[in-house]
This record gives sequence, structure tokens and C-alpha cells, in this order.
Amino acid sequence: MNKIEHIGIAVKSLKDSCVLFEKLLGAPHYKIEEVALEAVNTAFFKAGDNKVELLEATNPNSAIAKFIEKKGEGVHHIAFAVSNIETEIERLKNEGFTVLNEQPKRGADNKLVAFLHPKTTNGVLIELCQDIKD
Amino acid sequence: MNKIEHIGIAVKSLKDSCVLFEKLLGAPHYKIEEVALEAVNTAFFKAGDNKVELLEATNPNSAIAKFIEKKGEGVHHIAFAVSNIETEIERLKNEGFTVLNEQPKRGADNKLVAFLHPKTTNGVLIELCQDIKD
Repeated sequence: MNKIEHIGIAVKSLKDSCVLFEKLLGAPHYKIEEVALEAVNTAFFKAGDNKVELLEATNPNSAIAKFIEKKGEGVHHIAFAVSNIETEIERLKNEGFTVLNEQPKRGADNKLVAFLHPKTTNGVLIELCQDIKD
Repeated sequence: MNKIEHIGIAVKSLKDSCVLFEKLLGAPHYKIEEVALEAVNTAFFKAGDNKVELLEATNPNSAIAKFIEKKGEGVHHIAFAVSNIETEIERLKNEGFTVLNEQPKRGADNKLVAFLHPKTTNGVLIELCQDIKD
């Protein structure tokens, strides 16, 4: 794992939370992006070489809507940057982790992503992400 | 905020979780440290220029024990590096955030730290931390 690429935070209102995180981090978001496949709207902020991603559900069946219903707003996942996501998925499977998507999928912010089940990672939903080189 | 300094993760057993996070991050912890004031044992891992801190309660009254009792193991806080913690506390108070300790206190890993109440930060317990220059 190369670094913490971003922290994903589940929020009820992207608009309200963008105002809040601009105050917190001292700078506005640099991107708003819908990820239709995940039924989320996202906003990205920079914090040095790391990012904060806010996630708002676009419908009640979104994983983010269910997360907030169960746990309230808060940290949804921690994403680590990896150089080669296929190699890393293989390595982690061999170490006994449950990889939720063996085939990486296209995530927000121009990344290939895969998730590890929190049951195998101390309750933390871990995302692996690799830059897509177009 | 300069970068994500570390992610704090509440764990039941530091020993077991050190094994798990060594597998996850691909490298062992570089430090074990007790913070008696907070009633926790901590272990630190590097992930690029960021860190992962595991926190285990040393007694049932520790905030970490109570967190796990209520929410289970998982992300406890997100720590951001700041250059001047007093200035940042003042700025955030003026922005309407609730600062839990107006006087920074000594935390793990040679830092001065202060926390923001999660009620004012979308359910995320935010730590500010500044290196202590001895």
C-alpha cells in the first residue's frame, strides 16, 4: 500500500457537507462527480497529498443510504493507493482477506477500485485504488 | 490542514490486529506506545507518507473500550497534520466547530493533539496534530 489515497465519508447532504468541509479543511472541493453505478454523488477535497471524498446517496437503495440509516453519517471507507491492483488483490486473497470484487471496477476520480470486506479488516471497509492511465 | 497524518482504528486486541495490519499493509508496525493518560496501547504502521494507528483500551473506562462497546471495532478518528495547532484551534472555533480540548495535549508519536467534536463534523472524530519539536 503506497499511501492513504482518500477517506470516504458518508453524508446526508453533499451541499451542506461541502460547506462544512471547506471550513474544516480551509479550501473548497476541487471536483463533484456522480458515480451512477454506485448511486452516489461525490465531492473531493485535497488535504496535502491526500483527499477527502464526501459521498451522498442518489437513491434509497444506495449502499451509502443504507450505511447512514444503520450507522449515521461518518467514515465509510479508507482508500489506499496501490501500484498494481490485480497483484494486490491476489496478494491480499492469499493473506486471507475477503476481496469483495475480484475484478476491479471503475470508481470516482479516474480510479480502478476494489474493496475488502470489513469483517476481515477490523471493521474497516478498505478500498484499493489505482490510477487509470488513459 | 496539511495532510492526513494518520487514521486511528479501535481494536480489541493490539496483538491480533498487528498481525492483521502487517498482512494488509505489507510491512510491520514501527512503534508500540502506551498513552497512559488516554488508557490506550497504540501501534503505528506506515503507509507511504501517512500512518495507521491501532488503539487498544488498557481498561474498561478508556474511550476506546466505550467506543468498541457501542460501535464495534473500526475507524475511531482521522488525524490531520497542522503546522500551528493553536492557530488552527482558533480558526476552527471561529468557523463554528466544537473543539474538545482548547489546550492541546500530548498524544502518541510525539505530537501535540486536539480533537473536534464529531457532532460538528458529520460524525467524524477529527484530530489535529502538530509535531513536538523538542
